[in-house]
Amino acid sequence: MTNDNRTVSTDPAALDEARLRASIAAAVDGLRAVRPMVGSITNAVSMEFVANAQLAAGVCAAMVYLADEAEALARVGGALYVNMGTLMDVHAQSIPRAARVAHELGTPWVLDPVGIGIGALREQVLGELRAYRPSIVRGNATEVIALARLWGLLDEASSPHTPADRVVEATDAVASARGAAVALARWTGGAVAVSGPIDLVTDGAAVAFSTGGSPLMERVTGFGCSLGGVSAGYAAVADPFCAACAAAAHYNAAGTRAAGRAEGPASFKAAFVDELYRLSAAEVAANPLTLEEA
Amino acid sequence: MTNDNRTVSTDPAALDEARLRASIAAAVDGLRAVRPMVGSITNAVSMEFVANAQLAAGVCAAMVYLADEAEALARVGGALYVNMGTLMDVHAQSIPRAARVAHELGTPWVLDPVGIGIGALREQVLGELRAYRPSIVRGNATEVIALARLWGLLDEASSPHTPADRVVEATDAVASARGAAVALARWTGGAVAVSGPIDLVTDGAAVAFSTGGSPLMERVTGFGCSLGGVSAGYAAVADPFCAACAAAAHYNAAGTRAAGRAEGPASFKAAFVDELYRLSAAEVAANPLTLEEA
Amino acid sequence: MTNDNRTVSTDPAALDEARLRASIAAAVDGLRAVRPMVGSITNAVSMEFVANAQLAAGVCAAMVYLADEAEALARVGGALYVNMGTLMDVHAQSIPRAARVAHELGTPWVLDPVGIGIGALREQVLGELRAYRPSIVRGNATEVIALARLWGLLDEASSPHTPADRVVEATDAVASARGAAVALARWTGGAVAVSGPIDLVTDGAAVAFSTGGSPLMERVTGFGCSLGGVSAGYAAVADPFCAACAAAAHYNAAGTRAAGRAEGPASFKAAFVDELYRLSAAEVAANPLTLEEA
Repeated sequence: MTNDNRTVSTDPAALDEARLRASIAAAVDGLRAVRPMVGSITNAVSMEFVANAQLAAGVCAAMVYLADEAEALARVGGALYVNMGTLMDVHAQSIPRAARVAHELGTPWVLDPVGIGIGALREQVLGELRAYRPSIVRGNATEVIALARLWGLLDEASSPHTPADRVVEATDAVASARGAAVALARWTGGAVAVSGPIDLVTDGAAVAFSTGGSPLMERVTGFGCSLGGVSAGYAAVADPFCAACAAAAHYNAAGTRAAGRAEGPASFKAAFVDELYRLSAAEVAANPLTLEEA
Repeated sequence: MTNDNRTVSTDPAALDEARLRASIAAAVDGLRAVRPMVGSITNAVSMEFVANAQLAAGVCAAMVYLADEAEALARVGGALYVNMGTLMDVHAQSIPRAARVAHELGTPWVLDPVGIGIGALREQVLGELRAYRPSIVRGNATEVIALARLWGLLDEASSPHTPADRVVEATDAVASARGAAVALARWTGGAVAVSGPIDLVTDGAAVAFSTGGSPLMERVTGFGCSLGGVSAGYAAVADPFCAACAAAAHYNAAGTRAAGRAEGPASFKAAFVDELYRLSAAEVAANPLTLEEA
Repeated sequence: MTNDNRTVSTDPAALDEARLRASIAAAVDGLRAVRPMVGSITNAVSMEFVANAQLAAGVCAAMVYLADEAEALARVGGALYVNMGTLMDVHAQSIPRAARVAHELGTPWVLDPVGIGIGALREQVLGELRAYRPSIVRGNATEVIALARLWGLLDEASSPHTPADRVVEATDAVASARGAAVALARWTGGAVAVSGPIDLVTDGAAVAFSTGGSPLMERVTGFGCSLGGVSAGYAAVADPFCAACAAAAHYNAAGTRAAGRAEGPASFKAAFVDELYRLSAAEVAANPLTLEEA
């Protein structure tokens, strides 16, 4: 046996990956130790899944509709989660007001621009949120591209429009949203996470890729939403880039495990939530991850 | 061995059943191949179950509250699902406007008149929907009779009123709703599905009976609603009568399978959704089914 | 073998416990036999869990938002459940109006003051409800103390305020809420149930303690809410004190059983609902229970 030091890498990228994995492991343990309260304004379809995923990961979950209550939670919580899913009139007030409070206090907040592209109120509210620079934007490729365009961060000609009948699906490949994600992250100063078969996370400087999970995630409502909600939990205990990477790793690791014993979408979902709760920090940090420059 | 041709029936009813089974099998495969987007305006109790059942069966699910968003989904979707469950003021606009768009475009839409009989807004909205002739009406016997009466399609004396404390339960036998179902189907020109221990589906000319499922379906909220949502998916790929029969067969076959390994309502529900996803088109089409003239 | 009559206790407390256990068993069977309709105004996060727990226990569940519909359900139902979770403007009317109808008709109703302490509307609505004296108040220690204080039933100095970032968690020990619970019960003339590791139920004269369940109940949203909803079901077939004790015993017994085969929060929840449905009246009544004077 030769002593060739193969275990001590001098490759900078490998060193960065090792540091990121260590940060992810610390975030997983930190979330479970701190149990931060995270207020959520989120859609009616997956509100329960968001809460249960947050609780399984270690978040203290609280959902609200009314503007003064949303502001109160933004004021006292460790982070805020905003999901545009089933928009109602009350959200015209509660979403921008809560986001402003979070922005002013420096409290991390996560924006999930689901459904961008249908409806006037949705566009108006998303327009207002530009100034409050979300710590993490989480969406599929279509949504991330549409948000970057709505906020004027993309050259109109640089990326294709999405057909209106696919607004809630990930029709663009994750790779096609890389430029939009980087542009968004540079605007917000936070992180952007693009969900897909391979998840992409960027802070505008580095780009991380996280793999795992299961195609069954597309057959259950709320996997994206609850990933956003868990990302908000991580943002209460780690910087946005690490938080988004930790959430993606946690979801992919739990999804890979759950897929191994699922008989269909419902047993997959239950096994997934169980795994969110059970996986160790080391197991989350060991999920496949690569880093590149943006 | 004699060559008696017993496998080739010359009985017209048996031929029709064979044709219907073939259409059901084609609808199951078609739904999975097309993955139509179906917008839903549905109640808060079972919104997640509706989405998950639709996703398991092959639908791309999208839920909304706001009127302009409901119209947008009706405009671009393969079908529309309207469920009156937990009515709110926003529905006074969004339900009739979406239904009108669907009607004008010839897009199939499914009406689930759950809760008919309590509240003024519910009655007003259902009254407006008469003109938009839903492609499929799905309800329990009580609801189907009440809707036929509300729309003036039944002689007041011909069917009994339901006590107000049973408005969300199937207290009338399915058989007692046969006349109302046929009258409704002749008004709408579509299909009417009455859920119960034996499901009845009619297009005003033929009446199909589908059996299977489990009494546990009564012990879990949303089986009726999600059946309506899946029926809308089938209506995007098949005519209303075939769509309603395919949805009933899919539900009954999955329920029968799931009941075989359930330990109670929650494990039944999870196994059911898994089976929605797993059953082959042939297995759905083989679910017990009989046909009669109306 | 001596004939020492050890099985016939002459201890009054033991006799009372035996009577309470017999009443609990009768309530479990009664709920399953009567299947009372119970209307609920409850939060969007756990609305489905409330309905499914009620259905599993034997309740006919119906959820509403609109004021006239809430009044209609209060008028015809066997009981009413009011949960303040995700308050919306519509609740400013529907909650007080439904509670007033129940109060005037002598229909039992259950109040779950979740989230007390955030927001103006929440405080206003809870203030109005004081006059309608809920048959059962169910909450964690924090909420019960806060409600007793809001209703002027506690000396301001007698119990500590809760930090605003823990409004939906049980930060006070159940024991610390004993005085508040007794004061509330004496005001309402009904029962008060304080949920925690050991559940406390009082009618202002006696205090019952119920144990069991699992720490996993804290890792799934809606266990408290659905306990409130099931308590309303029991209140339709038993007096408030027995109803609250029966619900606590049912939950603790089902939770203990489910914990034995759970692999995490989601499999725990499913097993729990299955057990709600499966446990016999005798098994519920045998759950650990002790009685004291208030």
